[in-house]
Amino acid sequence: MDIIQSVLNGDKRSIAKLITLVEEKSDDFINILKKIYKYTGRAITIGITGAPGSGKSSLVNKLTRILRTQNKKVGIIAVDPTSPFTGGAILGDRIRMQDLTLDEGVFIRSMGTRGALGGLSRACYDAVKILDASGMDYIIIETVGVGQSEIDIVKLADIVLLVMVPGMGDDVQAIKAGIMEIGDIFVVNKSDKDGADRLVTEIEMTLDLGSSKNSWKPPVIKTIATENYGIVELSENIEKVLKHMMQDDLLNVKRKSRIKQEIISLLTETLIENIIFRYSEKIDMLIEKVLERQIDPYSAMEIIISDVK
Amino acid sequence: MDIIQSVLNGDKRSIAKLITLVEEKSDDFINILKKIYKYTGRAITIGITGAPGSGKSSLVNKLTRILRTQNKKVGIIAVDPTSPFTGGAILGDRIRMQDLTLDEGVFIRSMGTRGALGGLSRACYDAVKILDASGMDYIIIETVGVGQSEIDIVKLADIVLLVMVPGMGDDVQAIKAGIMEIGDIFVVNKSDKDGADRLVTEIEMTLDLGSSKNSWKPPVIKTIATENYGIVELSENIEKVLKHMMQDDLLNVKRKSRIKQEIISLLTETLIENIIFRYSEKIDMLIEKVLERQIDPYSAMEIIISDVK
Repeated sequence: MDIIQSVLNGDKRSIAKLITLVEEKSDDFINILKKIYKYTGRAITIGITGAPGSGKSSLVNKLTRILRTQNKKVGIIAVDPTSPFTGGAILGDRIRMQDLTLDEGVFIRSMGTRGALGGLSRACYDAVKILDASGMDYIIIETVGVGQSEIDIVKLADIVLLVMVPGMGDDVQAIKAGIMEIGDIFVVNKSDKDGADRLVTEIEMTLDLGSSKNSWKPPVIKTIATENYGIVELSENIEKVLKHMMQDDLLNVKRKSRIKQEIISLLTETLIENIIFRYSEKIDMLIEKVLERQIDPYSAMEIIISDVK
Repeated sequence: MDIIQSVLNGDKRSIAKLITLVEEKSDDFINILKKIYKYTGRAITIGITGAPGSGKSSLVNKLTRILRTQNKKVGIIAVDPTSPFTGGAILGDRIRMQDLTLDEGVFIRSMGTRGALGGLSRACYDAVKILDASGMDYIIIETVGVGQSEIDIVKLADIVLLVMVPGMGDDVQAIKAGIMEIGDIFVVNKSDKDGADRLVTEIEMTLDLGSSKNSWKPPVIKTIATENYGIVELSENIEKVLKHMMQDDLLNVKRKSRIKQEIISLLTETLIENIIFRYSEKIDMLIEKVLERQIDPYSAMEIIISDVK
């Protein structure tokens, strides 16, 4: 159980090793996580998402630097699509964060989506627990994709930053609209581009539509991450929103919903793995029948359910 | 049971109504789907995905026109993120397809991702079944998002088109790499832009890395959808790839894997809904304990599993 103690001491190598055990679902990783759990709950998790090319990595980089000047320890989890050929996570623009890796108070990890099959948010939140137990003050979760799974991951963070840039196409706007409700702070990055003010107005108008007159409204912040513009304001707003969420007990509501999601996803995984293992022959036989239109998929499912019962 | 007969007759209003029943999980929709299932299996499904702004809708539009000149009936399902405030799917650039809706042989439907929680691919494939039974020759599934859930949907299609454009940023390339293995045809759209030939070469090199010397390689096609350039070549390649997939029995392998996914997702949904309903009080009580670090999420899951057994 050496690894637990080293993780609790903040040893980076042990943190990395334990996350790998979680990703690979190695023997005993559940027992280790069980033992670590009571040391969690201190860290604040920040989810960052937005369309590709919106400058999320630069924002994470600059935000981390500010947190470091306040002597906060920062863990960063970058959820990346995975190359089918290399087997490893694509590091892509993580390279922009390379200078941070030399800082003792920063830990960066990429996690791939390949083959995760719904298990990604579980693995990701196990990694958050490990970083939390290791003494990180802030844990930033950045997703590259802009699909439903990626949204499912960031929306479980304590506070969610939605990053947008001016002048994107039609369906980018659609994606934006689809995820607006999960944003606690809206960041208009690359705000020196044409249309930045219009985008801010659009966001504010959409937020007005969705909220009553006196209710809390998420702040909209203009930044130019590459030039460090607006980053201090962003970090101040993160503190402000957190304070508001704590006052109104919203943080606990969010954390409970994360725990619920986690328990349900663990239940699902365990039950389904069990059933697929026990009924694999029957399932294969039913697949043939469904393919030949002898039965339909719903009836096939019902046959297995009645066997399980 | 009038609705079944009208769907089988290809009545558009009935098709739309039945898809709504599926989305809303209305009473009896499963019984209707069970009865319809034996009339399915004729249609070819084409999945189209790619980064936002890559011109997928224009491609679908132009491809549909060619299929219509061959007198094929075409169903189009656009998987869209959903606005949190309007409650309806964002139609965004669907408007570009508006002229197609006047054509009797074309049916277009947007399906939203909001609240789907893993049920989206089920609802989407139920819609495919309905369109299949209604006599569509081709069913095109277009996704706007580029995340894992959207990839999970298109990869279940008979044939998958991956759309890319020259000159996108770093993390677009990462997404590209993450999904290359699901592509049966690669489309470089907006190929009049700088870097189109380089992108084609990059794709071909990546495909070479992933395949043995004499194995089948997916075609890479240059298009400019808005100018109708390359669309005939694309449609010819779709036929060529389909022929290859049928010869090598790959189509049945793919369809079996789709059926397996579907049965497993139906099983998961049914079991979990059942458990959440039966154990909701216990789950709420365990969530409190997990929040207070009295127990960990894994132990909470195990307590429920042992109750279920």
